Amino acid sequence: MTDVTHQKWWGWGVEGIAFHYDDKPHFAAFVQDKVGIDLSQPGTPPPSFSDLEISASRLPEDLGAQLRAAVGDHQVSTDDMDRVVHTYGKGLRDLVKVRAGDLPRLPDAVVYPANEDQVRAVVDAVVAADAVLIPFGGGSNISGSLTPQADEQRPVISLDLGRLNRLLEIDEGSGLARIQAGVLGPDMEEQLTARGWTMGHQPDSFRHSTLGGWVATRSSGMQSDKYGDIADITRGLRVVLPGKVVVLRPLPSTSTGPSVREMILGSEGRLGVVTEVWVNVHRLPENREIIAYLFPNWAAGIAAMRDISTSDASPSVTRISDANETAFSLATRKESKGISGKVSTGLFELLRRRGWDLEKVCLSYIGYEGGSAKVRAEKSVVGKIVSKHGGIKLGKGPGALYDQKKFDTPYIRDFLLDRGAIGDVSETAAPWSKLPDVYQGTVRATKEAFATLGVTGFVMCHLAHSYHSGACLYFTFAFAPNVDGDFLEQYDVVKSAIQQSFMDTGATLSHHHGVGTDHAPWLEQDISEAGTDVMAGLLRSVDPGRNLNPGTLLPAHREW
Amino acid sequence: MTDVTHQKWWGWGVEGIAFHYDDKPHFAAFVQDKVGIDLSQPGTPPPSFSDLEISASRLPEDLGAQLRAAVGDHQVSTDDMDRVVHTYGKGLRDLVKVRAGDLPRLPDAVVYPANEDQVRAVVDAVVAADAVLIPFGGGSNISGSLTPQADEQRPVISLDLGRLNRLLEIDEGSGLARIQAGVLGPDMEEQLTARGWTMGHQPDSFRHSTLGGWVATRSSGMQSDKYGDIADITRGLRVVLPGKVVVLRPLPSTSTGPSVREMILGSEGRLGVVTEVWVNVHRLPENREIIAYLFPNWAAGIAAMRDISTSDASPSVTRISDANETAFSLATRKESKGISGKVSTGLFELLRRRGWDLEKVCLSYIGYEGGSAKVRAEKSVVGKIVSKHGGIKLGKGPGALYDQKKFDTPYIRDFLLDRGAIGDVSETAAPWSKLPDVYQGTVRATKEAFATLGVTGFVMCHLAHSYHSGACLYFTFAFAPNVDGDFLEQYDVVKSAIQQSFMDTGATLSHHHGVGTDHAPWLEQDISEAGTDVMAGLLRSVDPGRNLNPGTLLPAHREW
Repeated sequence: MTDVTHQKWWGWGVEGIAFHYDDKPHFAAFVQDKVGIDLSQPGTPPPSFSDLEISASRLPEDLGAQLRAAVGDHQVSTDDMDRVVHTYGKGLRDLVKVRAGDLPRLPDAVVYPANEDQVRAVVDAVVAADAVLIPFGGGSNISGSLTPQADEQRPVISLDLGRLNRLLEIDEGSGLARIQAGVLGPDMEEQLTARGWTMGHQPDSFRHSTLGGWVATRSSGMQSDKYGDIADITRGLRVVLPGKVVVLRPLPSTSTGPSVREMILGSEGRLGVVTEVWVNVHRLPENREIIAYLFPNWAAGIAAMRDISTSDASPSVTRISDANETAFSLATRKESKGISGKVSTGLFELLRRRGWDLEKVCLSYIGYEGGSAKVRAEKSVVGKIVSKHGGIKLGKGPGALYDQKKFDTPYIRDFLLDRGAIGDVSETAAPWSKLPDVYQGTVRATKEAFATLGVTGFVMCHLAHSYHSGACLYFTFAFAPNVDGDFLEQYDVVKSAIQQSFMDTGATLSHHHGVGTDHAPWLEQDISEAGTDVMAGLLRSVDPGRNLNPGTLLPAHREW
Repeated sequence: MTDVTHQKWWGWGVEGIAFHYDDKPHFAAFVQDKVGIDLSQPGTPPPSFSDLEISASRLPEDLGAQLRAAVGDHQVSTDDMDRVVHTYGKGLRDLVKVRAGDLPRLPDAVVYPANEDQVRAVVDAVVAADAVLIPFGGGSNISGSLTPQADEQRPVISLDLGRLNRLLEIDEGSGLARIQAGVLGPDMEEQLTARGWTMGHQPDSFRHSTLGGWVATRSSGMQSDKYGDIADITRGLRVVLPGKVVVLRPLPSTSTGPSVREMILGSEGRLGVVTEVWVNVHRLPENREIIAYLFPNWAAGIAAMRDISTSDASPSVTRISDANETAFSLATRKESKGISGKVSTGLFELLRRRGWDLEKVCLSYIGYEGGSAKVRAEKSVVGKIVSKHGGIKLGKGPGALYDQKKFDTPYIRDFLLDRGAIGDVSETAAPWSKLPDVYQGTVRATKEAFATLGVTGFVMCHLAHSYHSGACLYFTFAFAPNVDGDFLEQYDVVKSAIQQSFMDTGATLSHHHGVGTDHAPWLEQDISEAGTDVMAGLLRSVDPGRNLNPGTLLPAHREW
């Protein structure tokens, strides 16, 4: 058996870690009020694996023999648990389906190659057999990019890159590292920091996502303002295609025509298998601080973020939560720790006397990195902008707390599902001038969807990444669906309303979660029908037989 | 007749402007010494237009009628001068050929559309007639991207975008501007600065190149360290393809799969005609300074540029010339102005006494932009790095002079051609750790090529753009070819040696001049054969009939 470990088959993260609220005294009341769930009632635990009905593997004998010859007998698995784990990512849709035992098409085998030569052998064998290949990293995808098409008649092979997990070399003179694509975030950063370096890429999924997965979906981390999106960080690539390997050497910039690097980025397995990535790496910063601020309202906070983006300061993190998300943060705080120490006592009373409407307060985090002089100067520039927009500084304590807790959020979705509620996210990006419309339009569309369904629901938002010309808005929503209705149909009403609102207000279908199958219906609205023609032409030219992760990226009517 | 103006048919820039050296007392001796040309001998002026043998236009009557219907009778030209101007760019090869009257295949007509609808009508008519379309901006291309294939049997239409020259809108809240693709650099900046904005993009070709041309070739300007390459600046696009228009709305970032924006960037006319571009624009900076520094040698200067790139300073310009280019700068100085005021008198004597080898001195320019505090802090950070590497500050005077003269260099090529000498450029980018090899390898390869030819020649270099992981090196070379040999054959020996040296040392075929036909032979070495497959597949899927600027980008054996 392989030694690659996986997330829970039914939810986020590893066994034994889950969201709990026994140390968060305000949480139960908040959830009761906003989502209409009574947490004093016992939840329904996830189903037992033994209850699942799992169809037998249809791996043809010939192909099985070729795969075993390629990677070794013990690295080809037709084990039920392996196949279930590799059937879905961790999207809301995935979690609902797997909990319901809805498994229309599992991969017929999971293959664990140890190196690029083995990847080549697997890719060639799969394509020669007219089978389907789905590359798999940490399995954290939430856009539906990992699931075999329900009606797929050909054999389906999940290619797990988990054994390609080594830092291969650091070019210290250039700040570049060559790293295998299957490495998980923490493992990679441990190998880098042991030598004094960091990549600085920290998506929410960090603990359970891989470098190759980040590349394949155009990921972005919470420090992207300094370190860039994965598209900026990625400088070179090795990608296995049927019968060949694309080799893009590490370059700071180049003018070699339409960028093949930028075609592989975001290709979600349809242009081959990424095996190695050259990435920008940085020396660990001398100072690193995350400071919390409060703004009297969302408009003031957004205006401040925009002013910071055109100022002489260049923070590593710019983040502001709307009033709802700020209230959520306060509701999940522990007693007398972190932010609560300041806000729960005299501060809010003081702000009220200053004329703040406490229902509208927005919490912001700004990160600073670099030498003392730079950090000091930037804090001064930001401080003036915060004041100009009526905000105040809270300090380092809440920032440090945020920094520690930042990877815990995905566990809440499973907690809610245990209790019959749906929680999910949709994120986007748009020019600064359009953000008010995007925000108001999306909040309105979400509430209208709740009303249509007749459910109690909640939507909150934060600005997560700033650029010269705009920013990413990240929405989280939760509601208690009607128990007599189909969960996913109700989910689709809300999710579709949000995605359509993005299109209608000039925003994109996703800033960093990719297209997958969930967002593909909006691709033509986003990049135009003619733009979709160009993308489809590229995919078809590389993979005329639709052997490489078919069904993701393009809307169904665009498949050939 | 159209009112679009063009560069000289035989050389760079506009009639009446040329390089001259009567106010540069050290120039003649320098050229005699380095390139072996006696400037006291009279030069050969460019040929007379009336001496050219120009084959008649083969524009079919039907297609001509359709084109006139599309853009108006006066905007379809079969005039000889128009056709000659649109036959070549301004590469060394182009200039030698046009001066020699070597015109194997001219466009059959030049068409001047006024808007996107007219562009659509022209594209559709050309493709329906199975003719060839070559988009044309300022005609400043130096990689051979504008010339009809010599053996092209189909009608060839040059599509001049010169009338699409308006700034259409500024989204002031987002720092974004929507601009027509045919606008020339100075015209565009004039329209922007009238409203208090700048795009900050200043390639050497700025005065005679267009926004659409920058996009189509992946241009980069001398302030790219701050403003980014054109690929970073470009946020949205409109591109006319046969029967449709790709519309990419302005977005700060997105994860919509393989980036169609990054496919259009660098496509050199093979993926359609760019008509509008959404670009990042910035408020005019509060302060802008270019400071000159001297380093004792190239290695010290490069090490300093690298340290600056990882420091807390973020200058707008980082540039350093090698010893040869520094000597060239000193040789082109006017008496008692600018740099000469400092360096020609006591300074060099002082440096000699300090132990500097004056043959190795390297001149550097660093640009600063922003508020006073930022500029002051960054100058302090840079000053310490310069000192650490043994450099000294010269001051603002030479920097201001450089800033004024920066667009004059291309005229020198014509000056040399008048005198029977060849001058040209090749530029590249590579990781910092490889720059010493790239530099030494290229200088050696160039000198070996001169030796093979038995000619007197000169090669010089500067670092022109810095990134986190590497930089652009820009080589300029000149030599006096054997008069009894073929000029272009001798040129090819040198140019090919340089390009191959880039490949052999881990550098790219071009950082910002594009691929064209000149660099296409090195594409497979640069992005790998499999990477070339991916690019060729994309081009073929969009343009199976090879109607859109065929022959550029791909090596000849990759055409379909």
